Amino acid sequence: MKSITKAELLVNGDRLSQSIANLASIGKLDNGGVKRIAYSTEDIEARNIVQQWMKELEMEVRIDAAGNIIGKYPGINSDAKALATGSHIDTVPCGGHYDGAYGVLAGLEVVRVLKENQLKLDRPIEVIVFTDEEGSMIGSKAISGRVVLDPEYYRRPDGTNIQTCLKRVGGNWDNITQARRSLDDLAAFVELHVEQGPVLESMSKQVGVIEGIVGQRRFNITVKGSANHAGTTPMQMRCDALVAASQVVLAVNKIGNTPGQQVATVGKMSVLPNAANVVPGWVEMSLDIRDLSSLHIDSLLKQLRIHLEEIAVATNTQIRLNPCLHNEPALAEPYIQKAIALACKNLDLSYTYLPSRASHDAQELAQIADMGMIFVPSKMGVSHDASEYTSPEECLQGANVLLQTLIRLGTV
Amino acid sequence: MKSITKAELLVNGDRLSQSIANLASIGKLDNGGVKRIAYSTEDIEARNIVQQWMKELEMEVRIDAAGNIIGKYPGINSDAKALATGSHIDTVPCGGHYDGAYGVLAGLEVVRVLKENQLKLDRPIEVIVFTDEEGSMIGSKAISGRVVLDPEYYRRPDGTNIQTCLKRVGGNWDNITQARRSLDDLAAFVELHVEQGPVLESMSKQVGVIEGIVGQRRFNITVKGSANHAGTTPMQMRCDALVAASQVVLAVNKIGNTPGQQVATVGKMSVLPNAANVVPGWVEMSLDIRDLSSLHIDSLLKQLRIHLEEIAVATNTQIRLNPCLHNEPALAEPYIQKAIALACKNLDLSYTYLPSRASHDAQELAQIADMGMIFVPSKMGVSHDASEYTSPEECLQGANVLLQTLIRLGTV
Repeated sequence: MKSITKAELLVNGDRLSQSIANLASIGKLDNGGVKRIAYSTEDIEARNIVQQWMKELEMEVRIDAAGNIIGKYPGINSDAKALATGSHIDTVPCGGHYDGAYGVLAGLEVVRVLKENQLKLDRPIEVIVFTDEEGSMIGSKAISGRVVLDPEYYRRPDGTNIQTCLKRVGGNWDNITQARRSLDDLAAFVELHVEQGPVLESMSKQVGVIEGIVGQRRFNITVKGSANHAGTTPMQMRCDALVAASQVVLAVNKIGNTPGQQVATVGKMSVLPNAANVVPGWVEMSLDIRDLSSLHIDSLLKQLRIHLEEIAVATNTQIRLNPCLHNEPALAEPYIQKAIALACKNLDLSYTYLPSRASHDAQELAQIADMGMIFVPSKMGVSHDASEYTSPEECLQGANVLLQTLIRLGTV
Repeated sequence: MKSITKAELLVNGDRLSQSIANLASIGKLDNGGVKRIAYSTEDIEARNIVQQWMKELEMEVRIDAAGNIIGKYPGINSDAKALATGSHIDTVPCGGHYDGAYGVLAGLEVVRVLKENQLKLDRPIEVIVFTDEEGSMIGSKAISGRVVLDPEYYRRPDGTNIQTCLKRVGGNWDNITQARRSLDDLAAFVELHVEQGPVLESMSKQVGVIEGIVGQRRFNITVKGSANHAGTTPMQMRCDALVAASQVVLAVNKIGNTPGQQVATVGKMSVLPNAANVVPGWVEMSLDIRDLSSLHIDSLLKQLRIHLEEIAVATNTQIRLNPCLHNEPALAEPYIQKAIALACKNLDLSYTYLPSRASHDAQELAQIADMGMIFVPSKMGVSHDASEYTSPEECLQGANVLLQTLIRLGTV
C-alpha cells in the first residue's frame, strides 16, 4: 500500500459520466428524464446495481432498518470513526440524471480511484444511499433519530404502508430506531449535489461551498372577508378577501426583498367562491420562508405579522397565520467548509460560499455528525425536470473536490 | 266601469304576501330556500299556477316561441300599445322567495286590484314571465331580438338541448325569432324587483328609482412569469406571476375606488403550479367592471391598461387582458323615472335614484321599448340565497309604486 500522492489524486471523469449515464438508463422516460420513485421496481433495480458496484469495489455493504444502503471502504485505522458521503438515487416523477445520483456515484468514483491506486485513508469511507429523499426522507431521518414513529405518517399516496415499502428494499420498520447513528461512529458527512438553483451559473463559479441548509418555516394563511355580489355591492361596502390577500402577497414579497439571503414565497392560493361575479369571501394561501439564521426568520416574521394586522384593519378582513412546518437551519461545520475551499484552491477551481435553500439528507446528518456540502452548477438552475443538466466537466470538478475534501478530512 | 279614483288605488298587501308564499312552496328546500331551475318540473309547475292565476283574472294568456308567458289585461283603448310589467319565476339552485317572483306577482296583484275595482287603463297591461332569467335570459333576449341563433349556445349543463327545453314550457325553438317585439306594440316596460344589494337598506330608503342597468365588461387576465423552486431561486432572479397578479388585483381595486358609481372586481383566480415550494409561473383571473356609462368604463379600462403595462415591466412578466363579455348599459327613460318618483312622493315613500348593477330582463326590453325599474330593499343586501328577505310591508310599498306608475303611464 503506497503512502504517497493522495494530494495529487484525481477521479476519472469519463468513468464517472458513464456511471451517471448507466444509472439514468434505469427508469428512463421518453423525454430523456428519469422516473425512479422510492420503492418502485425502478428504484429497486437501481439500488441493486449500486450495491453490485459497491461489491465490485470490495466495499462491505449493509442495509439498515430504514433501507439505507451503506457501503464501507476500510481505512488504515480500523478504530477510527467513519467519514461518510453519499446522497439518494430515488427521483421525483419526472426527474433528471443528476439530482441525488451524482452524489452517490461520485462517492463510488472516489473509492474507485483510491482502490485502483491501492490507497486508503486513515478513516473508513462510507458511501450511503439514503431511502426516499424525494418523499419522506425517512432514510436520513432514521439515521438522525428524527423519524416519526407512527407508520401512518409514511403511508404512500397509493395506499401502500411503510412496512411493505421498507421490506421491498431490505429494511424493517419494526427495527427502524436501530438505524440511528451518532457522533460515536460517524466523524463527518460530506454531500456532493447539483445546486438545483441558478446562483453558481449566474456568478460563473465552478463550485459552491455550502454554509448550511436553510431553516424553513411554512404557514397556511387564511383571509376571511365577505362574499357578495360583484355587481350590486358598492366598493366601499366590500370586505374583499382577495384584495386583502393580494396585499399579503406583496408584504411577503417585500420582506423577501429586504437585505439578507432569505427567500419568502406565496406559491399556493385558492379563492372562494371563485366566481367572476362574486366578491371573494375567503382566500387560503401558503407562506414559505427560508434563511440560514433562525433569528433572522423570527425577525422577518415579526415584521410580517405587523403588516398583516395593518392589512386586516384596512380591508376589514380577518387574517390568520397557521404554522404547518418548522425546520431549523442545519449549519455546515466551518472546518469542513475550509477543507472544501482549500480543495477548490488546490484544484484551481473558482468557488463561492452560499446557503443551500433546498432540503438535503445532509440536514439530517448534521444532527448527529459534522456536516458539509459541495454544490456544482445546474444549467439555468433547473432541477426536478428532464432538462436538468450539469456538464461532464462540472461533474468531474465536483467529484475531484469531494475526493480532495475526503482525503483532507480522512486523516486522523 | 268607473272612471274615478285610480290615483287612490292601493294593492292588497296580505293577498300579495300570500301569493308570494304560495309560489315559494313550489320547489321549496329544507333550508327555506327555493330551487326552481328553468325548465325543471318545479319551474313548469310554477308556470302552470301563474297561468291559472292569470286566467282567473280573465287575462288573455299566450306563450311565445321563447316560452315567455304573456298575460294581457285589456285596456280601454284597444288600439293603444301595451304597457308591460313582469319578471321571472325561475331561480338559482338555492334561491329565495323574492328574486323575480315578486315582480311577476306584484304585476298580477296590480291587475287584481284594477279588476276588483272594475277599472281599466287606456292601455292594455301585459304581465310577462320571462324564460330562464337566471341562466341564458333567452326569454327577454328573444323579445329584444338578441337571441343567439345557434342552439348549441343554449345547451343545458346536463346536456339537454334547447329545443327540448322550450318544448317543455310551450315554446318552439324553430320559431324563436317570432318572439321578437318592437316599439310598435309595446309602449313601455316597468320591472319591479328586489335590490339584491345593500344600498337602499344602508341609506334607509324605501324605494329605488333605477337610472339604468349598468354596462358590464368581463375579461380574462393572464399573467405569465417563470415557475421556479421557491427555495433555490433568489428573490432578485424571480419572475413571480402571483406577485404581479396581486399588483393587478390592487390596480383593479384602485380604479374601482376612484370617484364614480363603477364597481370593479377580481372574483376568480387560479395559480399554477400552485405548490407551496414553487414560485408561481402562471396566474389566470377574471375582471368584471360595471358602470352606467360606457364612456366611463372605457376611460377606467384605459387607466388600467397603463397600470398593467407598468406592472408587467416591474415584475418581468407578461400580462394579457382578453375580453369575454361586453354588455352595453341600458338606460331607464327619464319620463318613467319621473313617474316612479312621483308615485313615491304621492305614497309618501322615501326614495333614491340608483343604478342597477345586476342584470335584469329589463335590460333586454330596453332595446325595443321605453324601460323603467323599481327596487325595494333586500335585507343585508343578500340574494341568491335562502336568507333573501324583503318584508311584507316593503313588498306592499313597491307594489303600490308599480300600480301608481302603471296608472300614470297607462294613460294615452
